[in-house]
Amino acid sequence: MRLADVVSVLEQLYPPATAQSWDQVGLVAGDPEQPVRRVLLAVDPTLDVVAEAVAVGADLVITHHPLLLRGIHSVATTSAKGATVTELLVNDVALYCAHTNADVADPGVGQALASACGLAATEPLTVSEDQELGRVGELAEPVTLRAFAERLAAALPASAGGVRVSGDPDGQVSRVALLGGAGDGEFAAVRRARADVYVTADLRHHPALEAREEARAAQRAGGAPTPYLVDAGHWASESLWLPGLRELLRSRLDVQVDLSTVRTDPWDFVVGCDDRLLRPDAPDQPERGALT
Amino acid sequence: MRLADVVSVLEQLYPPATAQSWDQVGLVAGDPEQPVRRVLLAVDPTLDVVAEAVAVGADLVITHHPLLLRGIHSVATTSAKGATVTELLVNDVALYCAHTNADVADPGVGQALASACGLAATEPLTVSEDQELGRVGELAEPVTLRAFAERLAAALPASAGGVRVSGDPDGQVSRVALLGGAGDGEFAAVRRARADVYVTADLRHHPALEAREEARAAQRAGGAPTPYLVDAGHWASESLWLPGLRELLRSRLDVQVDLSTVRTDPWDFVVGCDDRLLRPDAPDQPERGALT
Amino acid sequence: MRLADVVSVLEQLYPPATAQSWDQVGLVAGDPEQPVRRVLLAVDPTLDVVAEAVAVGADLVITHHPLLLRGIHSVATTSAKGATVTELLVNDVALYCAHTNADVADPGVGQALASACGLAATEPLTVSEDQELGRVGELAEPVTLRAFAERLAAALPASAGGVRVSGDPDGQVSRVALLGGAGDGEFAAVRRARADVYVTADLRHHPALEAREEARAAQRAGGAPTPYLVDAGHWASESLWLPGLRELLRSRLDVQVDLSTVRTDPWDFVVGCDDRLLRPDAPDQPERGALT
Amino acid sequence: MRLADVVSVLEQLYPPATAQSWDQVGLVAGDPEQPVRRVLLAVDPTLDVVAEAVAVGADLVITHHPLLLRGIHSVATTSAKGATVTELLVNDVALYCAHTNADVADPGVGQALASACGLAATEPLTVSEDQELGRVGELAEPVTLRAFAERLAAALPASAGGVRVSGDPDGQVSRVALLGGAGDGEFAAVRRARADVYVTADLRHHPALEAREEARAAQRAGGAPTPYLVDAGHWASESLWLPGLRELLRSRLDVQVDLSTVRTDPWDFVVGCDDRLLRPDAPDQPERGALT
Amino acid sequence: MRLADVVSVLEQLYPPATAQSWDQVGLVAGDPEQPVRRVLLAVDPTLDVVAEAVAVGADLVITHHPLLLRGIHSVATTSAKGATVTELLVNDVALYCAHTNADVADPGVGQALASACGLAATEPLTVSEDQELGRVGELAEPVTLRAFAERLAAALPASAGGVRVSGDPDGQVSRVALLGGAGDGEFAAVRRARADVYVTADLRHHPALEAREEARAAQRAGGAPTPYLVDAGHWASESLWLPGLRELLRSRLDVQVDLSTVRTDPWDFVVGCDDRLLRPDAPDQPERGALT
Amino acid sequence: MRLADVVSVLEQLYPPATAQSWDQVGLVAGDPEQPVRRVLLAVDPTLDVVAEAVAVGADLVITHHPLLLRGIHSVATTSAKGATVTELLVNDVALYCAHTNADVADPGVGQALASACGLAATEPLTVSEDQELGRVGELAEPVTLRAFAERLAAALPASAGGVRVSGDPDGQVSRVALLGGAGDGEFAAVRRARADVYVTADLRHHPALEAREEARAAQRAGGAPTPYLVDAGHWASESLWLPGLRELLRSRLDVQVDLSTVRTDPWDFVVGCDDRLLRPDAPDQPERGALT
Repeated sequence: MRLADVVSVLEQLYPPATAQSWDQVGLVAGDPEQPVRRVLLAVDPTLDVVAEAVAVGADLVITHHPLLLRGIHSVATTSAKGATVTELLVNDVALYCAHTNADVADPGVGQALASACGLAATEPLTVSEDQELGRVGELAEPVTLRAFAERLAAALPASAGGVRVSGDPDGQVSRVALLGGAGDGEFAAVRRARADVYVTADLRHHPALEAREEARAAQRAGGAPTPYLVDAGHWASESLWLPGLRELLRSRLDVQVDLSTVRTDPWDFVVGCDDRLLRPDAPDQPERGALT
Repeated sequence: MRLADVVSVLEQLYPPATAQSWDQVGLVAGDPEQPVRRVLLAVDPTLDVVAEAVAVGADLVITHHPLLLRGIHSVATTSAKGATVTELLVNDVALYCAHTNADVADPGVGQALASACGLAATEPLTVSEDQELGRVGELAEPVTLRAFAERLAAALPASAGGVRVSGDPDGQVSRVALLGGAGDGEFAAVRRARADVYVTADLRHHPALEAREEARAAQRAGGAPTPYLVDAGHWASESLWLPGLRELLRSRLDVQVDLSTVRTDPWDFVVGCDDRLLRPDAPDQPERGALT
Repeated sequence: MRLADVVSVLEQLYPPATAQSWDQVGLVAGDPEQPVRRVLLAVDPTLDVVAEAVAVGADLVITHHPLLLRGIHSVATTSAKGATVTELLVNDVALYCAHTNADVADPGVGQALASACGLAATEPLTVSEDQELGRVGELAEPVTLRAFAERLAAALPASAGGVRVSGDPDGQVSRVALLGGAGDGEFAAVRRARADVYVTADLRHHPALEAREEARAAQRAGGAPTPYLVDAGHWASESLWLPGLRELLRSRLDVQVDLSTVRTDPWDFVVGCDDRLLRPDAPDQPERGALT
Repeated sequence: MRLADVVSVLEQLYPPATAQSWDQVGLVAGDPEQPVRRVLLAVDPTLDVVAEAVAVGADLVITHHPLLLRGIHSVATTSAKGATVTELLVNDVALYCAHTNADVADPGVGQALASACGLAATEPLTVSEDQELGRVGELAEPVTLRAFAERLAAALPASAGGVRVSGDPDGQVSRVALLGGAGDGEFAAVRRARADVYVTADLRHHPALEAREEARAAQRAGGAPTPYLVDAGHWASESLWLPGLRELLRSRLDVQVDLSTVRTDPWDFVVGCDDRLLRPDAPDQPERGALT
Repeated sequence: MRLADVVSVLEQLYPPATAQSWDQVGLVAGDPEQPVRRVLLAVDPTLDVVAEAVAVGADLVITHHPLLLRGIHSVATTSAKGATVTELLVNDVALYCAHTNADVADPGVGQALASACGLAATEPLTVSEDQELGRVGELAEPVTLRAFAERLAAALPASAGGVRVSGDPDGQVSRVALLGGAGDGEFAAVRRARADVYVTADLRHHPALEAREEARAAQRAGGAPTPYLVDAGHWASESLWLPGLRELLRSRLDVQVDLSTVRTDPWDFVVGCDDRLLRPDAPDQPERGALT
Repeated sequence: MRLADVVSVLEQLYPPATAQSWDQVGLVAGDPEQPVRRVLLAVDPTLDVVAEAVAVGADLVITHHPLLLRGIHSVATTSAKGATVTELLVNDVALYCAHTNADVADPGVGQALASACGLAATEPLTVSEDQELGRVGELAEPVTLRAFAERLAAALPASAGGVRVSGDPDGQVSRVALLGGAGDGEFAAVRRARADVYVTADLRHHPALEAREEARAAQRAGGAPTPYLVDAGHWASESLWLPGLRELLRSRLDVQVDLSTVRTDPWDFVVGCDDRLLRPDAPDQPERGALT
């Protein structure tokens, strides 16, 4: 099977025209005429993922994140991007990226995260450049915020940081908004959607705190202190898409398809994650370091 | 004591001209002639911090983060910023913010974090608009990355997310770079400083992973896989500055000064933080959800 | 009656979506749940207008000009904007602004000025962001420029500067273009509308002189030396809208509504306004100071 | 005498390098070799000024305002700028403009206005692009605002609009800031200069009102309600420079030099300038039109 | 015949609204009422073309290229643009420019070049601002690249530089894309049009070489090494439009119309144009200067 | 010899800090540890140059022009840039580019062109980002423009287009300005340098014609019709640098160094280069095609 044939199937699943204009998707390395017998799937095209591809004899790596989102001016091995391109080319390993076009596909990244949240029918969270970004839907029945987060955590691959939650663990959630990847630019859409909880990743202090303050102001005016926030981890939440992609490719192409065993989450371990803080209802809160 | 007198002391400690040009520091609410008897210190000017000030009878709140970094066009209570301004004014509580000017002061935010990291003498990490941002220094003696992170965690106030670490727990660290607050724009300076570990906060997936990939490429070329990364939490790492500020104000002003008891970290709890993941050397790694 | 109820009526009269994108309209201070019993109307939200509201017991001030067109970063009383916000909030006085959305409404600011000019049916002067700005119409019968200006002056509230006119006092005018507020960006539209006279305010030397030079060039090519210019004063011309608004609110809301007695025109008096210059047909023109 | 010789003297008086970067000064029309016997001086290069030059046989017009500040793409007579260029060229009349370079010269535009205000020694109001803009100085002895304005009006050429004043007629003024031409961008500098009154022109409603509100806020905080504002008229205030220029050229060049008799102020007459409003202390204020 | 009448006919032939937004077309000098008896046509409004107009008694020059594409701030004779404007005005010669509006007209500049290339029916190369730019069509029968270039050269006026060609002289060409004037921004459109050869002018080293490298890469992937490039000269290729314009004007207006005899191509002669290099199939290639 | 050693010598000859900020110089492909035995020098890194390097066994190509001046987002072989990167990497051929840093070096690109023009001592034409760009110098004795051009042509490698000249063949030239590569942005500097002739490349119709019109206007005012223009060809003029670089590398490194035999000038042949046009003094000028 030629690389061009695999690319053709990928572009049916994830049409490049559905990617956002700032994105860089498609074939990043390889010759359309080269043969493909084995494919490796991963969230990020890291050096270790490429080394795994070489080790297992994969001809093609498919990732969610682009290798060259910002253009490069050198492929010398003195930079990580250059070293990665060099490793790909000298080992005849092709690379294909499906990013925001995979986010919006169905099945796709947003849909996979919606399933993990327990949502069936969903509607778009927002629209950007004529594409529907993120999903919003109703749970079959309301659950507590803590139960919702634990159920989602069980569906995600294990990660060092786990799932961070902002809000009352006993608050009820029924309407869920979600956006794969970094989501701190879409709080206004989440509020317009009247979601009880927002599942996304890479939330930073200021946007998260400002969103919670808006919820607090709404509560003071007689409403609910929502949306709550769930940061599911960038790598973990987007890796949910890979098993579905593996099945799609296996059913359409006569190639071997595997999931990478490399965790490309940058975080290796966490310390100071106090047991009592995980249970804010515990009687004795920790008294450590500063602010005492 | 008039508010103007307190402001005068604060502007000696943290000259407004040392703030970055995009920042918004100084007196945010209040009349210079109003009396000040009691001061409350916090990282963020949230609604709950203002309510605490009202409850304890504080006339002035001093925070690190600006309330109005982006200009506002309304103080109606229909937005969180408007509700916060309204609460301050109707309760005669003044607000003063010292942000990037407090970061660069000595004593100040960067210096407090350096102390918590175990650094004595330090030099600047980088220079921006003629101000020294961040610090770099050598530990008294090398320690493992895990030991370094645990020591830092013990010095920080407890937080739901704890301290996230990227790198080999057994790797040795001696040279430390640090920057209070969100630090993912300064990786180039960290590499120039040849630091073994970079302590900061609010690191996102892409910048953190790209920084680790550069370290991985350096390792392939025969060097060390550094800098390691330590995300100490935005609120936790910057709250280290508050006790020192309390002492400074007590020694210079005849007012009562207290630390806020409100944790303004947006994260309330974490789930899925697997014990075995915290110890990557444990024999049986978790097998959950996707990617199995 | 709650503030929210008054806001609801105002947003029917002047839908916020009809404001220009750069404008800042709507509720600027106040809590939707606070009671409103008395309303004060003014062109500008100055400190003296707020003091008048406090003095007469008004709960709400409605103005044409936004208080916070440019965003603010502090409400400390050390700036006029901060002092105004503080006065409003500590006295529980709400503020609502209807600016370019009131300009385009009917009845509204443009319509009120058209009536004062003696126009019945009118059409739009130009269209910006899908909104009709300014009006153009025909007088019932032609009059001299001087008569036109005097009739308009009689309809305007008295002001120090009066009404400035550029053009031949004896020239005939029949077709009138007008734009409330500062109008020196719309001369091209006025020429396209083939108006004999343009009524607006805040005209500066260069735009006014260039517009008159175009009229002079047209005259040299055989046409009329028009459009003439009438600068009716920014405050005076926009205050024409207030009595109509008073009637609208009285008819729809059970609140007391008054017009502010504060003239917010910045000009207090004029000197050197020579009587002979007001009558350029007088025999002996003044011979003063320079250029003699 | 060749045009080049006149240009040489003008560039000694007003070096082009001292003009602001956005300005367009120097020779606008003419051939350096053409003869010059008679020169006409004016504030603006209008069609009537050019016609006067042709009528009196002037070979060169020198104006303060540039004819082509914005670049032109056509000199066809269908626009006023094109008609003016055409009239100049077909009649062999050259045009030279000295604008911001004349503002900053001594003697120059700023100095002439300072003299008319009664100032002897002055210092710069502000610095822009290394040039000193505007002047600040002390009167020989304090006078009331009304007396100051009347004295200035007597020194200015008569104009339809006269001199507009914002402030208490009986307020005392001693320290004067001034800027020829449109000055509503320099209020911050005027406040830094601690001037009692600011003399400039082309002040618009919003900047003037905001400046007066800052003065009002200062008064509330215990200071003086200053700076007062004096709008002396753009044409009138800048025409003060012309007689001095005439003397300079007569003393240095063997040419006839005259002042234009064309008033290029766009305003021809004023109506509704109520006598009682000119004297706000008069018992019965006018009750006209709206707001009654 | 008045100039206005000629302008009216020109604006029917080349509606100004069909010009690109950055262009500056229409009447550049002259008074609509002035008489026109004789018209001179040229590609560029140079000083020598104006001198020719004066010499032959032409009242109007019509050119393709705008005289004042960038706005000017002076018409003094010290610049070439000023000298040209002055020469036009003092000699009562009007100037009219039809540029991108003439490019897209039919008959027009693109159509004239298509005819010279031997194309009958054509379609647009690309669309910009709703206007069709450039043409694409099929030759009646395929010819070699050398024969195509020679046929085009025979149709063009003689020029110093001749016609430069990139590609195999013996390659077959059938589908032709063309764009009058500088065409190095439209290579992507040319590739989309699947043209064998692209005829345009003012091609620079980098864009031309990159376009040829794309053709080379296509050839390596099994395709043809096309499009070939033909640089026909900016002046020469656009002068093809003038004879047709002469006939159009003669048929519609009672004026004398002539073509300028001034070659406004800047290049006067070429040296080092080796005979053997013109015939790359010649046995002995030259061995000169560097690189030997 | 390692690639790192060659890079070290190249960075001494052409320090990267002397390149313009928009440029992209240095190591573009390769691993600093890979061995280098044979080096190939060329102006452009085309596919044929890389093929030549592979054919002759070169480990490193050094070119003047950057391969990746604009960043790339893919190295797939579907684009020429991607195909070139792939060919380099799969064949273990490194690429190094010295562009604007080689222009300004001595010996370097500008110096080599100055020598070919017959200049000994030179001074800079202009300064950009603290680097001296281009050269200006005096010939040992004046020559005619034709003789100057012919002497330069003899020093250049043969090219299809030869050397294009604008100006009187019999005009005398003594002072020469030059800039390697595309030079149509530096005409103002050339005029300031009072050069008789400007040698550069890639001159387009409009800039070249406007420069010649300024010369024509200067001539009308009594000066010389200069600077004349010489377009020496982008590839030809910059290839002059390569032989000197070969000698420098041979003297400093124990590697084999060769000049590429590939002409990377995009132009293959020229037609219609009429013999009589090359000699504008010939009696019978050609009468072809249009404009007859």
